[in-house]
Amino acid sequence: MIDINLYAQRSAEIVAAGRFLYSRGWSPATSSNYSARIDAQHIAITVSGKHKGELTEAGVMAVDLSGNAVLSACKSSAETLLHTVIYELFPDVGAVLHTHSVGATVLSRAMVGKSSLPLQDYELQKAFSGQVTHENEIIIPIFENTQDIAALAAQSKDYFSKNPEVPAYLIRGHGLYTWGKNMQDCLRHIEALEFLIQCEIEMIRISK
Amino acid sequence: MIDINLYAQRSAEIVAAGRFLYSRGWSPATSSNYSARIDAQHIAITVSGKHKGELTEAGVMAVDLSGNAVLSACKSSAETLLHTVIYELFPDVGAVLHTHSVGATVLSRAMVGKSSLPLQDYELQKAFSGQVTHENEIIIPIFENTQDIAALAAQSKDYFSKNPEVPAYLIRGHGLYTWGKNMQDCLRHIEALEFLIQCEIEMIRISK
Amino acid sequence: MIDINLYAQRSAEIVAAGRFLYSRGWSPATSSNYSARIDAQHIAITVSGKHKGELTEAGVMAVDLSGNAVLSACKSSAETLLHTVIYELFPDVGAVLHTHSVGATVLSRAMVGKSSLPLQDYELQKAFSGQVTHENEIIIPIFENTQDIAALAAQSKDYFSKNPEVPAYLIRGHGLYTWGKNMQDCLRHIEALEFLIQCEIEMIRISK
Amino acid sequence: MIDINLYAQRSAEIVAAGRFLYSRGWSPATSSNYSARIDAQHIAITVSGKHKGELTEAGVMAVDLSGNAVLSACKSSAETLLHTVIYELFPDVGAVLHTHSVGATVLSRAMVGKSSLPLQDYELQKAFSGQVTHENEIIIPIFENTQDIAALAAQSKDYFSKNPEVPAYLIRGHGLYTWGKNMQDCLRHIEALEFLIQCEIEMIRISK
Repeated sequence: MIDINLYAQRSAEIVAAGRFLYSRGWSPATSSNYSARIDAQHIAITVSGKHKGELTEAGVMAVDLSGNAVLSACKSSAETLLHTVIYELFPDVGAVLHTHSVGATVLSRAMVGKSSLPLQDYELQKAFSGQVTHENEIIIPIFENTQDIAALAAQSKDYFSKNPEVPAYLIRGHGLYTWGKNMQDCLRHIEALEFLIQCEIEMIRISK
Repeated sequence: MIDINLYAQRSAEIVAAGRFLYSRGWSPATSSNYSARIDAQHIAITVSGKHKGELTEAGVMAVDLSGNAVLSACKSSAETLLHTVIYELFPDVGAVLHTHSVGATVLSRAMVGKSSLPLQDYELQKAFSGQVTHENEIIIPIFENTQDIAALAAQSKDYFSKNPEVPAYLIRGHGLYTWGKNMQDCLRHIEALEFLIQCEIEMIRISK
Repeated sequence: MIDINLYAQRSAEIVAAGRFLYSRGWSPATSSNYSARIDAQHIAITVSGKHKGELTEAGVMAVDLSGNAVLSACKSSAETLLHTVIYELFPDVGAVLHTHSVGATVLSRAMVGKSSLPLQDYELQKAFSGQVTHENEIIIPIFENTQDIAALAAQSKDYFSKNPEVPAYLIRGHGLYTWGKNMQDCLRHIEALEFLIQCEIEMIRISK
Repeated sequence: MIDINLYAQRSAEIVAAGRFLYSRGWSPATSSNYSARIDAQHIAITVSGKHKGELTEAGVMAVDLSGNAVLSACKSSAETLLHTVIYELFPDVGAVLHTHSVGATVLSRAMVGKSSLPLQDYELQKAFSGQVTHENEIIIPIFENTQDIAALAAQSKDYFSKNPEVPAYLIRGHGLYTWGKNMQDCLRHIEALEFLIQCEIEMIRISK
């Protein structure tokens, strides 16, 4: 059903991403989940509840785009559907990362009643594919947190089918989702977003 | 009296925890003390005054649940009774960690006159065993600092016999105690708590 | 046209600088560009769009002082002219580093309407060549961000031909340029500047 | 004149301290100077202007308590007299460390017109030799910065001959001096002081 060599390669990319993201403090306390596309119908994704800094290939499994385990008795992340919905919407997406930084948690909580984070006049906006100037305004939507993952999957599908430009969203008090055409791209997006989130927090503090 | 292989295993876990916690800046300047259960009556615990980032098995010793040294001429941490009282109350607890972060010190001091830190609407609350939604309110008690360890042991025994749900407390201007069914669990709790404390501090700053 | 051994040495210095600067968080998400002088007419400079923490010699190329590629089919950094203008102005400059820290981004944005950052009474000002006391005032100019690199090159040439003392400038919401007589000197300048920028940010926060 | 084995041992301790202190960001941009006692009349001290994270034994030299080089053509730190005055005052002092953290720089600048930093109700005060309770008040004097090192040496000699209890002082906008009976002790003091300085800064921010 799946190409085992491709699966092994995607697993290795996920394990390496976990070590990096944990070392930055963006995936503490077994939080976060990561995935990478194997083929049109399958993705590799982290098994539920693993320590992301000590991840091994045994902490990764394959699922189809309905979220069903493939060739594995493990249980995938509770948020699997938030990954598959992105792969379904965007055939050219190769990796999806969900992280929990202090910055993403705090900024989304502090923006009470706001449904998006606008970013403008940062040179680093150009780290997103297709952005060529700091003068554009980038909009990162903020969804309300919920334990109803199916509802959140539907909300993100609806939003990104209408707004495909910016590959990221925040969940309030919860964390960040971002994606890219491959793992390297996705990691660049996450570094840029965490940088911009940190800048926004510092701007609020320094302006008060 | 004690199984030497179990003791060696628990000591190794404590040494590894020390390296991790020191690297995070949560156990500076020979502060902090750590323990792990050997059996129903004995725990391994750090020897008083050791550098936690350079801890070796020689910096760990065994004590019984009254705090008496077992097969050792070393002096255990001055706060040994704060560990033993938790093992006595909760037979399923396997590890207790006490740390001194800037965050725990500052937040507990800043909450003048408050006897607890309430936490709500953070996805990361789910890092605590038994928590399944961010909608619950978690209460972390704050005890006043004192050099009278017996009094603090009695206070924590009294509090947690009535409030066993959340495995953690703060001592004002001093640090954090947390526990879990094994070292891995306990380290997950400490990562989650330090994350949440950092979020609370940032929320205060950003809201001012 | 160029001495290949000198080129290899300069490339190695740039690769090492990249690892250091990325590890500090000053070159996230493939941002930043670095250069070092090969001879009077040529510099080694980073290829456009490389991950600075994973830079290899293959991510460095040679250009002449007009910004034309030498013995290479690669495309140099979009900001190449901001480097060459400094080498032209100052024959004794051996290295130029451009970085993107949160601090440089935020402080330059927060100083709305100000065209420079004055620094005084910091002992660390003595890290700049020729500075012997904290009592001097050092002026770091802040240029407005633009995607018109030729215009920014002209502006920096004009400014530093008149104000050659302090080897650094900020671009608002973008980052920091600094230089020195060799890579070691330039790295010392960047460490000092990031330190002083951090101090200025903390002073603003603590004073509010 | 000096025992070469003792000298080599003290040099190695200074080199190791440099790597640690630089990694913490407390000795940036070739700032800072460190020393350790060889015997009653001699100390090992860092050579002027060295990168503290890349220090080798070649960056350490011996001086007598008047600050004269011994068996060396190198130039010792410009602040050598601030070290020797402490060794003269306190025969049991074995190490003196001078560092430049953002925290020490900013807090000393922010306390305009104050000649000391009082610390109280921090458990970590017990990291200082002789301190047994958080209830004591510890006073860290703040001296004004000056390039007149002889004057600063006289001021520190005068102050600490009258106030020998707390082994530390701040120089405004410049950094921290601390000492201990050996290098391990001195490093514990510096970790505790940087922790307490960070707490004080956070308390100011959180209270505003």
